[in-house]
Amino acid sequence: MIVLFTDFGLEGPYTGQVQAVLHQQAPGIAVISLFADLAPFDIQAAAYLLPAYAAGFPPGSVFLCVVDPGVGGDRPGVVVRADGRWYVGPDEGLFAILARRARHVECLELPRPETASPSFHARDVFAPLVARLARDGSFGAGPVTSAAAARPEWPDELHQVVYIDRYGNAITGTRAAAVTGAATLSINGHALSRARTFTDMPSGTAFWYANSNGLVEIAVNRGRADRQLDIAVGTPFEVS
Amino acid sequence: MIVLFTDFGLEGPYTGQVQAVLHQQAPGIAVISLFADLAPFDIQAAAYLLPAYAAGFPPGSVFLCVVDPGVGGDRPGVVVRADGRWYVGPDEGLFAILARRARHVECLELPRPETASPSFHARDVFAPLVARLARDGSFGAGPVTSAAAARPEWPDELHQVVYIDRYGNAITGTRAAAVTGAATLSINGHALSRARTFTDMPSGTAFWYANSNGLVEIAVNRGRADRQLDIAVGTPFEVS
Amino acid sequence: MIVLFTDFGLEGPYTGQVQAVLHQQAPGIAVISLFADLAPFDIQAAAYLLPAYAAGFPPGSVFLCVVDPGVGGDRPGVVVRADGRWYVGPDEGLFAILARRARHVECLELPRPETASPSFHARDVFAPLVARLARDGSFGAGPVTSAAAARPEWPDELHQVVYIDRYGNAITGTRAAAVTGAATLSINGHALSRARTFTDMPSGTAFWYANSNGLVEIAVNRGRADRQLDIAVGTPFEVS
Repeated sequence: MIVLFTDFGLEGPYTGQVQAVLHQQAPGIAVISLFADLAPFDIQAAAYLLPAYAAGFPPGSVFLCVVDPGVGGDRPGVVVRADGRWYVGPDEGLFAILARRARHVECLELPRPETASPSFHARDVFAPLVARLARDGSFGAGPVTSAAAARPEWPDELHQVVYIDRYGNAITGTRAAAVTGAATLSINGHALSRARTFTDMPSGTAFWYANSNGLVEIAVNRGRADRQLDIAVGTPFEVS
Repeated sequence: MIVLFTDFGLEGPYTGQVQAVLHQQAPGIAVISLFADLAPFDIQAAAYLLPAYAAGFPPGSVFLCVVDPGVGGDRPGVVVRADGRWYVGPDEGLFAILARRARHVECLELPRPETASPSFHARDVFAPLVARLARDGSFGAGPVTSAAAARPEWPDELHQVVYIDRYGNAITGTRAAAVTGAATLSINGHALSRARTFTDMPSGTAFWYANSNGLVEIAVNRGRADRQLDIAVGTPFEVS
Repeated sequence: MIVLFTDFGLEGPYTGQVQAVLHQQAPGIAVISLFADLAPFDIQAAAYLLPAYAAGFPPGSVFLCVVDPGVGGDRPGVVVRADGRWYVGPDEGLFAILARRARHVECLELPRPETASPSFHARDVFAPLVARLARDGSFGAGPVTSAAAARPEWPDELHQVVYIDRYGNAITGTRAAAVTGAATLSINGHALSRARTFTDMPSGTAFWYANSNGLVEIAVNRGRADRQLDIAVGTPFEVS
């Protein structure tokens, strides 16, 4: 299975162009779009989502991961193999948290492309490699060199919002298992206590809970947390 | 064919997570997203869209239907078999109009899940069942009990907007066959007469017409009805 | 491969309804959505995108192209075969630039449909024909007549924005090969010089560049050109 994890959007041409390459070079292999609306340019936010949302996919899945403000510049591309899954994308920190948490991890730096468009490596560099990995489980004969994925000095748990979903719920970069159930979250002057799920709270009340992928999520029963609490990707919070 | 009818959005991550389950458990079966932008939490609006838009799908199609403000609470899940198609989802009224209009209908209540995430039954409870139905046409050995789908006391024709499309057209919960061609629709102080299609009206003129799925739809030729008439999902109208 | 090029949106319901027809009538053939968010009703803008973005698809690809403000009216439907690819859609100018630039082009006018919905020819007229072309490479026995695609008197290079992408970049209707590298673009009082790619410019600086499909694109490194320059689909510019 090929999994897309990008900030491309679906409607506009980039995801479709990548899918066309994948279909031609890995025919018959399913392509799932997991995220197409990661916050543009925000590598750190995406880095904390990736391990939480990749965990549910079977071994052998190949992830095409692109949040790539540095496309066309000096940043290298990388292939990461972590706990039996493959990840391909630009190496500016996107794989840092994944690599830190993995039991087994291996990173290979890709050679600089000579003929690719300087603005669309996903289509011209990463997708062909993803297709080959999905098809053969191998890189082919390309000259790759062993490397460490970029490892910024980011915290183990990020106390920030990393994604706002369609309902206005705010997913954070903090694992619920790292927070005690009795903890209070303070965000933008609001103090939130924990609930098991939406219907345990009155309509219109904000709370936090362990979402279905194990992250702390801030929500409002039958309401939009983003508007009610005036929060967005990047908004920080405190745990006490 | 598996058909998705949800308020999840496509771009991230819920539809992709559901598709990953379906792909693994029903490989090779096509998954079509019919609606991913149903109005959040608005079960009634979705209930009037479902029979109109399901009618075009072939017998044996399996619909995963989720507008589920009560997820994790007491509401049961249900499987509905109506006129040769299957529907799976939360039973809070979403299938009420479908069941009322079907010639043959059978409902089975699902057992309460023991291990599912309390916030994502679509992925953990409904998708595996949808996959099994699409694959085998059966439930397996699960302990299901015969039941009636929830049947709120809703009117046969809902005189409200139930969906705004990408063009700003307003689809309503009223079947065109239930309204005479000479009828006037009054909405937000505007009186609208019927046209056959867009190009029969001058640019910028609002009208109503029988849309391609048989519902009354309010539109403006080369304009946006939602903005021009200040209407949204839930806006009521009168027929005279 | 079937390619969708429309202003339908993906989330609901039109693309899904078209995909359902394609899946039933051309099972097993991949369907890629290239654009689903073309500017509504703007045939000219779409006409300049089509040849640039179709060029990357393999021979035999069949494009379903719909920007169709005249649906249900007098405008004919058409099949265009250009340089080994097929295109099907309403003939109001959408194929004009494609046909002008093709080395080999053939156009066939479709008969007026008798039973189709007057508002959804994409589902009822074009999709069945697209499926047949993708399956058999033929039209079947339908009575088609040779014709020229509509050819408005549009310029070879359109000096207007034709699409705003998810990042706020503005794709134009001008081929980069038609502009010298030293040229300055003037748009809304801003003078923009050329760069190779994003990272060659300081953050926040607007520039133009040759995008990955050969069109002039206006962008801001780590910013949104649409907001910073106050531009939208249709905004004109000058080249000097």
